Amino acid sequence: MKIQQVKNRTIIENKFYKEKADKLKPNFNKNIIHPISIIEMTPDVNEIHGWKSNVVEPAADLKGKDFGKGDTFILDFGKHLVGYLTTNIKPVGSPPDAPLHLRLTFGEMPVEVAEPFSNYNGWISSSWLQEEMLHVDVLPEVLSLPRRYSFRYVKVEVLDTSAKYRVSFEDIYCNTVTSADSKNVVPLNSSDKELNVIDQVSINTLKDCTQSVFEDGPKRDRRMWLGDLRLQALANYETFQNNDLVKRCLYLFAAVPNEEGQIAANLFMEPQLMPDDTYLYDYSLFFTTTLYDYYMVTKDLETLDDLWPIAYRQIELGLERLDERNIVKDDETWWSFIDWNDDLNKQAPSQAILIYAMKKAKKLAQILNNKETYRFLQKKIEDVTESTLQHLWDKDVEFFVSGSDYQVSWASQVWMVISGVLDQKSNLKLMNRLLTEKPSIMMNTPYMYHHLAEALLLLGEKKKTITIIKEYWGGMIKDGADTFWELYNPSNKDYSPYGSHLINSYCHAWSCTPTYLIRKYNL
Amino acid sequence: MKIQQVKNRTIIENKFYKEKADKLKPNFNKNIIHPISIIEMTPDVNEIHGWKSNVVEPAADLKGKDFGKGDTFILDFGKHLVGYLTTNIKPVGSPPDAPLHLRLTFGEMPVEVAEPFSNYNGWISSSWLQEEMLHVDVLPEVLSLPRRYSFRYVKVEVLDTSAKYRVSFEDIYCNTVTSADSKNVVPLNSSDKELNVIDQVSINTLKDCTQSVFEDGPKRDRRMWLGDLRLQALANYETFQNNDLVKRCLYLFAAVPNEEGQIAANLFMEPQLMPDDTYLYDYSLFFTTTLYDYYMVTKDLETLDDLWPIAYRQIELGLERLDERNIVKDDETWWSFIDWNDDLNKQAPSQAILIYAMKKAKKLAQILNNKETYRFLQKKIEDVTESTLQHLWDKDVEFFVSGSDYQVSWASQVWMVISGVLDQKSNLKLMNRLLTEKPSIMMNTPYMYHHLAEALLLLGEKKKTITIIKEYWGGMIKDGADTFWELYNPSNKDYSPYGSHLINSYCHAWSCTPTYLIRKYNL
Repeated sequence: MKIQQVKNRTIIENKFYKEKADKLKPNFNKNIIHPISIIEMTPDVNEIHGWKSNVVEPAADLKGKDFGKGDTFILDFGKHLVGYLTTNIKPVGSPPDAPLHLRLTFGEMPVEVAEPFSNYNGWISSSWLQEEMLHVDVLPEVLSLPRRYSFRYVKVEVLDTSAKYRVSFEDIYCNTVTSADSKNVVPLNSSDKELNVIDQVSINTLKDCTQSVFEDGPKRDRRMWLGDLRLQALANYETFQNNDLVKRCLYLFAAVPNEEGQIAANLFMEPQLMPDDTYLYDYSLFFTTTLYDYYMVTKDLETLDDLWPIAYRQIELGLERLDERNIVKDDETWWSFIDWNDDLNKQAPSQAILIYAMKKAKKLAQILNNKETYRFLQKKIEDVTESTLQHLWDKDVEFFVSGSDYQVSWASQVWMVISGVLDQKSNLKLMNRLLTEKPSIMMNTPYMYHHLAEALLLLGEKKKTITIIKEYWGGMIKDGADTFWELYNPSNKDYSPYGSHLINSYCHAWSCTPTYLIRKYNL
Repeated sequence: MKIQQVKNRTIIENKFYKEKADKLKPNFNKNIIHPISIIEMTPDVNEIHGWKSNVVEPAADLKGKDFGKGDTFILDFGKHLVGYLTTNIKPVGSPPDAPLHLRLTFGEMPVEVAEPFSNYNGWISSSWLQEEMLHVDVLPEVLSLPRRYSFRYVKVEVLDTSAKYRVSFEDIYCNTVTSADSKNVVPLNSSDKELNVIDQVSINTLKDCTQSVFEDGPKRDRRMWLGDLRLQALANYETFQNNDLVKRCLYLFAAVPNEEGQIAANLFMEPQLMPDDTYLYDYSLFFTTTLYDYYMVTKDLETLDDLWPIAYRQIELGLERLDERNIVKDDETWWSFIDWNDDLNKQAPSQAILIYAMKKAKKLAQILNNKETYRFLQKKIEDVTESTLQHLWDKDVEFFVSGSDYQVSWASQVWMVISGVLDQKSNLKLMNRLLTEKPSIMMNTPYMYHHLAEALLLLGEKKKTITIIKEYWGGMIKDGADTFWELYNPSNKDYSPYGSHLINSYCHAWSCTPTYLIRKYNL
């Protein structure tokens, strides 16, 4: 038994789960991709973040050029890539009598290679900004950078050569990596061309996030969060069908709960499997629902059997947070994610997610023929649902309210609809009122928009959903997305919860779900 | 036969010489050195470059500290080192949820870790400034930097961790490298303690420059220049006696002359043996004199036999530059080094060096029993000496003059004395006049000061030489030298021929000669 002591926590690693996960390490599919164009970025107020990419000449022309101190160029690889950069650098002129000093900047978006990172003033670590400064002592050199990058654009700045020589970049390419296998994806071939494009961008997003585990974003945070995993798994079932990777991720989460048995919000894979010390109310419950989704697709009873105790433990812990009224306690001691929105009260949506997770757990108990748990959950669902209607449903405003200020948010309504607290007819009315009245506590992430779309689809509202998908995810594409972004607020396109859009992730797992919505619900 | 085409040059590599050199590749002596103190640099107008190093606490205290964004510390290793840095970095706090971003700055001198390199505005490449910015994705990490550095001080700047973790540097050390073997050095044990110290600093300088070849400076240019090699070899014979390394370097230079047979001023060893496209009148002639010095110490007739044709060719090429008066032509087409001094006219000192080299060649011809060449050189030496006295000796000012402006410089007098153009009595008078009248075209480098010292010693002026050694090289030690500097002008201690003292080399081969002067001449 492996025990990790991490900052006042004791993590007891479950060897059985860990070994099962290790056996499911995926193979990687690799590709060599060359840049398409040499480009320049020009300011343009009509473009996202104020920068427009302009083609200067084909990237093939690079071979004939040479560069000295202060010279710079930007390459466009034509699409979003995740992988390792290699460049073959040759000296031009006299033998190199000083090292070459280079700065390489990788951007998923034009702004990242247009504005200097020294402008960054956000509150999360600037170390995520993809930039390297390096010296090359011996030329020619085939320079293969050891770190993995997530990018479409590469800015190359020659900081110095010497007065006696310059350099040429004879070849430059990216070795892309993913454990997703595109051969498994059935073409959508929708009669709606826009949906085909949105489906493809979703798939590209998922592909670039599918690595040794399902990562949230290959630029940042490059690790597995349960909230992302849940949605990636759903999109994966409809596309790459890399179901063993979902299984692996479930076993990894199950291997390192805390002393109470709670599943961490995210895991680190290096230098060894380690749970983050962030625990989110909703994310822990999603372990149970993700196992449910996995079982429904795979009918893998062995895995369900293995992981059920951990899955059920999340429900128990979720229930422990209920007050005497059967309402999730809202105070300073907890964090439930729901959406990136500082103004959003998390009580009501968390209450809904607890009910949603209990319903999934109830079905799993039934499958496992665990009658006692089944009955317990059935009763608990009824009680908590009744309490929810009694305490969180505001008959006057006809919305669910959350927290001591009775906040009306999109998130609360959406999650209550998904949880099925009301009947279908009331849900329909609620959603229509939501879309008409548009409460001011909006949604900031594709993650929350996904739940809006799914809530509508559960009510059969395909047309409305297609409109939302086209406006929201389609809007990202119109704004230049090659892969879907972590954050997108159409009315504030510079939005970042981190203090700077430079650090946002522009290929983010939780944004890949249109392919799931389109395919699962036959849009 | 290997032919290199480099920028309009054809280099035909002599395989026989190259293979002999390759067989003499040295072994390296390695040592692990830990820092002594954590220090801070404070401005102080009385210190060299305006910076004083102050001890804050023992370096052992580092282990208990941790550092976050913006934190910085400077380590003092207590002496000049050449080698590879390793540090064991551990995270403190939550699991690291973002890469560590570090900047490491290496300084031979306090100024290099006290002032930002962004201040650098010199004309040679800023890429020599020893600074690395790097990301560490996984912690803990034993970080071993791949590049070799030349330093006493290391500044560590934590550019970013994240809000959730900090880092500690559990261990930090340098793996030093040199091919010099200190066991071969006989202690000086002079009754003059000051000379013992100067001797030791000389030896430290030579040691740190003694690598796979004799390098000029381990910080910059990290390669073999003939002018440095000649002096290193002289110091080496008196100390480390790594005579095979001198032999190796001679064969390397001999392996890659240009089409005319001229030896390049310096060689690159990576990615393959390659001569620089700089050819210096004086340096090419020093191939011959360095072979002479080597033979006199080793009596290695086989090497002399092998290399004589190349050595003699340098004399022929030197003679080709004489005009009809037998005086070295001074025009825009050549470069003779002599000293770092833009105001210095190189004609007279180059003329002296030609005579000096011819005299060495004549002795080698005698050893090789090459009578014809011996007689030719004897006659030539007489002719050129006579011409020198006729055209370059100014009877009125009683100094040698150089160039169309009849410039009177220290370099001209010193080299004329060394070449023995005048008789000993006249030389003595000349040197006394030089030291009294102090012409304004002074000396900027220990390289030129070495020749002043040697000129005096050839005249038996031990006392005067000791005074100069103590004032000049001893002055560097008083100003903080652990190893002797490339440049030192006592009346302008910020002097740099490169536009900034940040880029000067503070461990430089051509400055290591006091140990030779002290030991060879029994000072």
